[in-house]
Amino acid sequence: MNFRVILYALGGLLRLLGLFMLIPLGVAYYYGESLTPFLVSIFVTIITGFLLLYYKTNEEWMRKEGFAIVALGWLAAAFFGSIPFMLDGISPLNAVFESMSGFTTTGSTILTDIESHPKGILFWRGMIQWLGGMGIIVLFIAILPKLGVAGRQLFRAEAPGPTEDKLKPRIKETARILWMVYFAISVLQVVVLLLAGVSLYDSINHTFTTMACGGFSNYALSVEAFNSPLIEFIITFFMFIAGANFALHYRAIYIDKKFLIKDDEFRFYTGLILLATGLLAFLLWRDMETGLFNSFRFAIFQIVSIMTSTGFATADFNFWSDSAKMVLIFVMFIGGCAGSTGGGMKVVRILILLRRSRAELFKAIHPRAIRAVKFNNKNVPDEIVNSIVSFVVIYLLIFLLSTLILSVLGMDIISSFTASIATLGNIGPGLNVVGPMDSFDPVPALGKLVLIANMWIGRLEVYTVILIFTPEFWRK
Amino acid sequence: MNFRVILYALGGLLRLLGLFMLIPLGVAYYYGESLTPFLVSIFVTIITGFLLLYYKTNEEWMRKEGFAIVALGWLAAAFFGSIPFMLDGISPLNAVFESMSGFTTTGSTILTDIESHPKGILFWRGMIQWLGGMGIIVLFIAILPKLGVAGRQLFRAEAPGPTEDKLKPRIKETARILWMVYFAISVLQVVVLLLAGVSLYDSINHTFTTMACGGFSNYALSVEAFNSPLIEFIITFFMFIAGANFALHYRAIYIDKKFLIKDDEFRFYTGLILLATGLLAFLLWRDMETGLFNSFRFAIFQIVSIMTSTGFATADFNFWSDSAKMVLIFVMFIGGCAGSTGGGMKVVRILILLRRSRAELFKAIHPRAIRAVKFNNKNVPDEIVNSIVSFVVIYLLIFLLSTLILSVLGMDIISSFTASIATLGNIGPGLNVVGPMDSFDPVPALGKLVLIANMWIGRLEVYTVILIFTPEFWRK
Repeated sequence: MNFRVILYALGGLLRLLGLFMLIPLGVAYYYGESLTPFLVSIFVTIITGFLLLYYKTNEEWMRKEGFAIVALGWLAAAFFGSIPFMLDGISPLNAVFESMSGFTTTGSTILTDIESHPKGILFWRGMIQWLGGMGIIVLFIAILPKLGVAGRQLFRAEAPGPTEDKLKPRIKETARILWMVYFAISVLQVVVLLLAGVSLYDSINHTFTTMACGGFSNYALSVEAFNSPLIEFIITFFMFIAGANFALHYRAIYIDKKFLIKDDEFRFYTGLILLATGLLAFLLWRDMETGLFNSFRFAIFQIVSIMTSTGFATADFNFWSDSAKMVLIFVMFIGGCAGSTGGGMKVVRILILLRRSRAELFKAIHPRAIRAVKFNNKNVPDEIVNSIVSFVVIYLLIFLLSTLILSVLGMDIISSFTASIATLGNIGPGLNVVGPMDSFDPVPALGKLVLIANMWIGRLEVYTVILIFTPEFWRK
Repeated sequence: MNFRVILYALGGLLRLLGLFMLIPLGVAYYYGESLTPFLVSIFVTIITGFLLLYYKTNEEWMRKEGFAIVALGWLAAAFFGSIPFMLDGISPLNAVFESMSGFTTTGSTILTDIESHPKGILFWRGMIQWLGGMGIIVLFIAILPKLGVAGRQLFRAEAPGPTEDKLKPRIKETARILWMVYFAISVLQVVVLLLAGVSLYDSINHTFTTMACGGFSNYALSVEAFNSPLIEFIITFFMFIAGANFALHYRAIYIDKKFLIKDDEFRFYTGLILLATGLLAFLLWRDMETGLFNSFRFAIFQIVSIMTSTGFATADFNFWSDSAKMVLIFVMFIGGCAGSTGGGMKVVRILILLRRSRAELFKAIHPRAIRAVKFNNKNVPDEIVNSIVSFVVIYLLIFLLSTLILSVLGMDIISSFTASIATLGNIGPGLNVVGPMDSFDPVPALGKLVLIANMWIGRLEVYTVILIFTPEFWRK
């Protein structure tokens, strides 16, 4: 393990992060708020970044160092990104929780009175979601001048979806294109929200957290605060876009829109959303007597919000009937598409697992028949299926362990269960104690550490973080 | 599809079942109870069996017919086995529920006042668990005179565990040995219970349901009715034995006891039980203040009972703390060993999935390294791993679908969740509405049908039943 290489790369990441802090500094200045939190944060972050220049090296990193850079890079971002929150008076543990929840686009909050915090701080809280959405490492690759083959390793360690989409032969160009598409759609959302009458500040902040599938809102009532079906439908639309594959968006915009419509994952993603929305709307209509229009309105917003792992709410679904909650719980285990900003297990993994299982089932009656698993009309190699299986097993294992720990710490079954999947899937709110209009603050300190770990592990899709905790990783 | 062959085989099964009904008839006679329920049942069952002789044929069945015989054979057994319950005044749906719960060794009961039913009926209720435990088809194979290669297909369709244990080259001999070992250990348990002061009737009835990992008790309070740590430890021991592989028991008894101790699955099974018992005992001691001895006593009994899928209770764990309940919920997803009378996903499947996932994890850093998954020092072929994955995916899918349906029918989240896994895993009791001291009677009628399907699907380890519901199965 070449620690020099790792530390040097982390230094670059911190200097970049420090520069980004200039933006909320400007916002705080505009609103005449205290500049101290950001000035101190920028100073500390950039100085640390420069101190790490001491490890300057021309060596390239290998596979292992790549994993370590990405895993530790996210940890460092969450830590340094939490400094403004600490200086705003939030306890260190809560600040790191909020920051990790931001960067990983989880959206679980420990704030209890959101509106009481300065606009600059809340802007930073939204902005780290946007940075984390497309990926701080992808951004790093897009911006840094000289990253060759080694860049691909970072890229894969941050976004290890089962189907790699090589938009361009050079990873740097792919990263740039992804960030450009992300930026462009974000600008579009800001404009549309402005046209719908939302203030510039609220438009930018909610765009940050919509496009990242994040879920932080600068209102305690989340999107319910706008109390406008139009704004809800706009946000639903952009959540839906953000939960789909950005490489496909690029192809759909620049080449042919059939790329999106013909994609197996996108079709399954859309189908699952429609199915779950229909079921939830029916249950709300039957059990909660919300009327036809409002049942559909609440259902589509909440399904898209939870399935894409955004986590906005337009209603306190803690008070919905158990059957309606059950639909939400199910959807928590799916997640967005690979290559989206959404979290969770990802639609493509579930689709491939289902297709494989179906094929295996018929082996019982036709043992010698070979049925390949198809995805977009191509055979899926066994290696990919095996890797998906392993991902799902480890993902569920971490989920179970987390649920067990929270439960032993005294949280009730449904809170433990949903807090675990809401953080591991980078969704945001859960049920009961950690409901959509509640705060994660009451979770015991050790429980918060577990949830911070969940968010970190979930955002990097398990392997990257888990590997660095194995003795085998550090062995020569 | 050759329906003649299927119907002819079902006829043989029914004639055998009718003969077994002579035993509870004798019990009813001994206690001076009404003989009508059994006389009518025997008549109907045996007559139906003889009518099916009309389809007499010498053709052998193929793979597909094998699956159909086993799936429909269990359905027929559950239906004809329910006739005594119907004649005892239980509604048809409830009677079929109780009978399916019996044969599949689930142990979920719809009876609300168990002690009010005649001893003959309760004896039959225990005996069908014992028949279903080692398998009615295995028994059929052991008893029927001429079953060659085709017998193996039935055997595999009824007990499709991932690791086949060919005790003898001829399947008939294997089936005989398994039933002999099962019978011998059952006799031993009856004797031990008698020595501990249990009445003959209670000893036989509880042995039937212990050795089958069933869970029906002729007392509403289940094993708590004895209120004796000694009897609890005896039953715990035999549940533990019944949840392990009977082929290993045979080898351990007749060849070398190392076969049991060196078996990877048996070691993992024992380890999981000890771990879960330790954790549960700690939680009971901490949260329920039951004292050290009683915490251990309740914990080991309940863990072994739930994990082996027996489902006896010595306490109403509905009133335990949420963390203690959580341990039980986890254990519900494991099950017994392959080749045991226990249900669930089976320890070996979980062990192999974990080992495979671990191997895949390290592929991320050593992509070219090939790590085979080992079980008992032998490489596990990919085919077996794939089949396990498919099993687990379909199993969990059915579990989720069942949970969703129950929830839509109005059951609360935890009741829907635990009722589904308790039936699919052939365990018995769940939590809340379907707790260990409660009855499944309040479940809505459609929900009962779903649970009946769960038990049937779970007992035959998914494939056998699911296959016959696919159009592809019936296609030429």
